[in-house]
Amino acid sequence: VTVAVDYPATILAAAQAGIQRVLIDVNVGLPRCGCAPEQAGELAEEARRRGLEVRGVMGYEGHAVGVVDRGVRSELCQQAMERLLTAHRAVGGPIISAGGTGTFDLNRWATEIQAGSYALMDTQYASLCLPFRQAVFVWATVISVGNGYAVADCGLKALGMDHGNPSIDGAHVLFCSDEHVTFSPSVMPRVGDKIRVWPAHVDPTVAYHSCMYVLEGETIVEAWPVDLRGW
Amino acid sequence: VTVAVDYPATILAAAQAGIQRVLIDVNVGLPRCGCAPEQAGELAEEARRRGLEVRGVMGYEGHAVGVVDRGVRSELCQQAMERLLTAHRAVGGPIISAGGTGTFDLNRWATEIQAGSYALMDTQYASLCLPFRQAVFVWATVISVGNGYAVADCGLKALGMDHGNPSIDGAHVLFCSDEHVTFSPSVMPRVGDKIRVWPAHVDPTVAYHSCMYVLEGETIVEAWPVDLRGW
Repeated sequence: VTVAVDYPATILAAAQAGIQRVLIDVNVGLPRCGCAPEQAGELAEEARRRGLEVRGVMGYEGHAVGVVDRGVRSELCQQAMERLLTAHRAVGGPIISAGGTGTFDLNRWATEIQAGSYALMDTQYASLCLPFRQAVFVWATVISVGNGYAVADCGLKALGMDHGNPSIDGAHVLFCSDEHVTFSPSVMPRVGDKIRVWPAHVDPTVAYHSCMYVLEGETIVEAWPVDLRGW
Repeated sequence: VTVAVDYPATILAAAQAGIQRVLIDVNVGLPRCGCAPEQAGELAEEARRRGLEVRGVMGYEGHAVGVVDRGVRSELCQQAMERLLTAHRAVGGPIISAGGTGTFDLNRWATEIQAGSYALMDTQYASLCLPFRQAVFVWATVISVGNGYAVADCGLKALGMDHGNPSIDGAHVLFCSDEHVTFSPSVMPRVGDKIRVWPAHVDPTVAYHSCMYVLEGETIVEAWPVDLRGW
């Protein structure tokens, strides 16, 4: 296990926990974890003093990966990587870890691309015209049909909502409540019909589910328990 | 178990599943489940033909419970209950089930108040000046301190986000990402400090967690597994 560290306290904690390998986490423009580039060399020295192997740097350009305009996204990525390369010159090590699904082919500096969402995709990333298809949906059942709208049995407890409503093919989603999605379909379904509800953001959606089912066509061929959920 | 039904297909499904008691679910203004009030009597007859005991009506004024202006909330609640009482006259039975945390003392017509959020509360309901205190928070650890901001280890996978960012006392929450919350505190914490993160919406927050801990002061006195999560 290689752990990203950005502070003397976390370096100490890593050493005390028996961690052997670290990357220095660098703030490359997203105000989240990560030291300033000019602190990276000193932190690497601190880590080596504690007996840790410093394998390089990591700096995730999370503020860039979702930008719709590809030119702006590329420019933001490059600026971020200039900060990361500055840090890397002071830190050393073989790894420059960065990049995401939105910059997987724009980041020409990282030795390790941190793309993950591409495997499943969501409607947020789909809007970037990436060469990946949406592969994850919530399979919901229509439980009520009203006057111009229908209701299916998945809602806020089944869908990551930080990027807004999910999507339903051939329908406009009106709103979600805890266990329901209300949508206005072009062709009214019947109670009992199954529909595919496409999440806007895949990560917090998957975290709601205890199991994922793998399909070939309409046939379930495997069931994968979702690991690392629960807080 | 008493089940709410609003359609011949769900009445049939309830009867076939061995359900014995039902309420007729009525749309009282929230476009979600529920029949039109004028259909309720006919559905009650259908349910009785299927051998089900019809215990009354249910109609949740979900479009009213979160309205900040108490006068408007009360007016919307009354209008909703007029629809429900119309349905109840045609359906019969002892139960008129309605009401929520936001209308618990405004709904004078229901025989059963469906308030649930009041027990834990959240920042959304707290803005209504109800006589209930917020009792649920995510206990997070500060893992990084930047220039004017800090980062704690709970994010989109630990918080219901449909009503926006959570709150942190004495701080402005800047944004959440999958496992992080970035916030601007008035007094900068240190790495390792514990903070209380108050969710904006309690139901989809609880659904992310496998266990709730009950505190007396700062002491954990019980651990409650969260039931009925996982989708």
